[in-house]
Amino acid sequence: MSTLNETHDSALTSWVASANSGDTDFPIQNLPFASFRRRNSSETFRGGVAIGDQILDLAAANNSGLFDGLAADALKAAAEPRLNRFMSLGAEAWSALRLALSRGLRSGSEQQAALQGCLIAQADAEYDLPCTIGDYTDFYTSVHHATRVGSLFRPDNPLLPNYKWIPIGYHGRASSIGVSGQQFPRPLGQTRAPDAAEPSFGPCKRLDYELEVGIFIGAGNALGEPVGIDSAEDHVFGICLFNDWSARDIQAWEYQPLGPFLSKNFASTISPWIVTMEALAPYRSAFSRPAEDPQPLPYLSSETNSREGGLDIQLECLLQTEQMRTRGEAPTRLSRSSFRHSYWTVAQMVAHHTVNGCNLQPGDLLGSGTQSGPEHEEAGSLLELTVGGKQPISLPNGETRTFLEDGDAVVMRGFCAKPGAARIGFGEVVGTVLTARV
Amino acid sequence: MSTLNETHDSALTSWVASANSGDTDFPIQNLPFASFRRRNSSETFRGGVAIGDQILDLAAANNSGLFDGLAADALKAAAEPRLNRFMSLGAEAWSALRLALSRGLRSGSEQQAALQGCLIAQADAEYDLPCTIGDYTDFYTSVHHATRVGSLFRPDNPLLPNYKWIPIGYHGRASSIGVSGQQFPRPLGQTRAPDAAEPSFGPCKRLDYELEVGIFIGAGNALGEPVGIDSAEDHVFGICLFNDWSARDIQAWEYQPLGPFLSKNFASTISPWIVTMEALAPYRSAFSRPAEDPQPLPYLSSETNSREGGLDIQLECLLQTEQMRTRGEAPTRLSRSSFRHSYWTVAQMVAHHTVNGCNLQPGDLLGSGTQSGPEHEEAGSLLELTVGGKQPISLPNGETRTFLEDGDAVVMRGFCAKPGAARIGFGEVVGTVLTARV
Repeated sequence: MSTLNETHDSALTSWVASANSGDTDFPIQNLPFASFRRRNSSETFRGGVAIGDQILDLAAANNSGLFDGLAADALKAAAEPRLNRFMSLGAEAWSALRLALSRGLRSGSEQQAALQGCLIAQADAEYDLPCTIGDYTDFYTSVHHATRVGSLFRPDNPLLPNYKWIPIGYHGRASSIGVSGQQFPRPLGQTRAPDAAEPSFGPCKRLDYELEVGIFIGAGNALGEPVGIDSAEDHVFGICLFNDWSARDIQAWEYQPLGPFLSKNFASTISPWIVTMEALAPYRSAFSRPAEDPQPLPYLSSETNSREGGLDIQLECLLQTEQMRTRGEAPTRLSRSSFRHSYWTVAQMVAHHTVNGCNLQPGDLLGSGTQSGPEHEEAGSLLELTVGGKQPISLPNGETRTFLEDGDAVVMRGFCAKPGAARIGFGEVVGTVLTARV
Repeated sequence: MSTLNETHDSALTSWVASANSGDTDFPIQNLPFASFRRRNSSETFRGGVAIGDQILDLAAANNSGLFDGLAADALKAAAEPRLNRFMSLGAEAWSALRLALSRGLRSGSEQQAALQGCLIAQADAEYDLPCTIGDYTDFYTSVHHATRVGSLFRPDNPLLPNYKWIPIGYHGRASSIGVSGQQFPRPLGQTRAPDAAEPSFGPCKRLDYELEVGIFIGAGNALGEPVGIDSAEDHVFGICLFNDWSARDIQAWEYQPLGPFLSKNFASTISPWIVTMEALAPYRSAFSRPAEDPQPLPYLSSETNSREGGLDIQLECLLQTEQMRTRGEAPTRLSRSSFRHSYWTVAQMVAHHTVNGCNLQPGDLLGSGTQSGPEHEEAGSLLELTVGGKQPISLPNGETRTFLEDGDAVVMRGFCAKPGAARIGFGEVVGTVLTARV
């Protein structure tokens, strides 16, 4: 796992003034990656790094030839339209580029004049998917979510016997993953009402979001060659925010015996910025589970994982209804949670995913599963917050919700903060539900 | 759906003599596509079309400039290392190239001299995946398989209530799909013995194959825009053979509530040749279900689908153990079945997959699910043939099997034949189980 170095020093400031504001998501200690271009332009997308309210255009920086050695090689790869090749280079290359960028963007840097010309305001940018996502796997790592949802789908058997032994996961759809700003029509599908003899067809009536983080694979592994838990994070590039939209009524009717399908694959939305594992190093913490729970099997267990497998990424989910948007009202918060509540670590997910020889590839995405906390109000989905649609929630403008309505925009944000370290943020992911096409 | 035309004429012969033998998989009425190069060479892979025991090298044919118009455009795309761009061009382009190839390879063709120099013997070739598979979905379309497997996993509840309403499907892993010849170590994983309190870890003890066909998407659809059942086959390029290897003991412990994961994603193997939907046109048949079964909802139903949705692809599965291979003994047949037993058609799978707005992309793969027939001996998996491992099968050389052993090679073949039409075949898909890496 990444160790602390000069790039994490909380005293560092940047010559980009907005990076020093204290409440920015993107101080010089963060340096996340995205693929961007000027909004409404026909420019080629290319890699960028967020600094304050600006983006350092990596294609422009690459053309300036300021860096040497491994950092220059890494910069060349990161300047491409999608980050897959950069991701494939591995931690040494990522780290070399991070160090070079940190030094170049630092207050007093001799490279300020050259790099200044490579900045583009985030306000003027639009984003693409940061990489081609070959395969997307969704895990189910919040025991609080699993228990609460399980109690709704299977009242007599909420948490299945395998849950505390296996990081439960399943394959999702890569083609329908979009970047923040994604809009999609309410899905149509088959559902069966609890009291109906036969299913019916129509627009989803129980449309929901899921508050997740997305984990991007960097260097891959060959088919047939498992990744051990202590080298698992060598294969992880970074983390984004992830909204795994879900059609609960379609899910309930379709999901047995082979799992969710059309209830999930109509859209999934990620934030544009990937925060690297190295940037997250200050926020590692011990990881353990209740003493009465089974301890993980050896392939899912290591001293390092216990010591620093935890990752406190604070998450929040907000809703802006169409009425709120029309009236110029800001999104209202629905819940807060944290990835520290995850029952399984990133390293455990990677080790489990590959233990049978399954190959991961650069740019593959692992969803964490809905990150609900232990308290009801920390739930990461409406299904939980409204107790299966039975307890509507009230919004400040007088509207209520059980599930999402047409025009609703869901906003997710995340950040890490603790005494002695710079607060770093993930930006946000926004997605909007359009009216069904009927 | 494709209509019959001069390319299907059973009286056609080719100037490639081996294409006229009567028992070849690849007469001039077939013309399937693959990506190939000379074996053990460092040549670039490129598209090829099978004719008898030869391959027409489409890159070489493209260089010869023999075709005009749409056929020439299609040939240029099909000559690329992977077929995705060709697949994206749609049925008119595929059909134009098929007609040009049929005329060029026909006995007496004026193009014989030019095309003769573009032939490479299949015996001298090796294959790559025919296309980049962005997403892979596995369906579950044999009601006979679903019922028999269901009775093993859920004796009290073999066929779930949704089965006859929904073409059940789930997302699989694209990265671990390999082409015929794939070898993989026996997967490791968690399993729990029926009488055990806790799971244990080790090599899979119930390794199985699944006899499927794979359906390749041609032209895609945009996110949010469903494909109606009567235009569904406009989006289908063709069909291959598909072995969806399965670790039954891992599956039993992991699959609830989100479906199979590590029990499936360690390897899946396809045949190199894709037989186009146009080549399959003579083998269409009426499609219906028992009168006592529910009739499909309107979005899964059409007059055309009822009239010609059926597709009689005869399938067989063979086993060659290591001992048989050492002694030079041919593979022995385990079972025969047909895709005509499918409870859902190709068009229904595509219409269902996209009805929620999910986007399909050129090169995406849909597995049919195990194609077991109604009789016990028509089962497409060892799980069924050995009744969950309780009734070992005897092989001609005296060996027995409940599940696959190390060194076992599984061979699948398929063909279509009926009076008045040329027999066309799929070639074969072979995969071999290696010893677990422990």
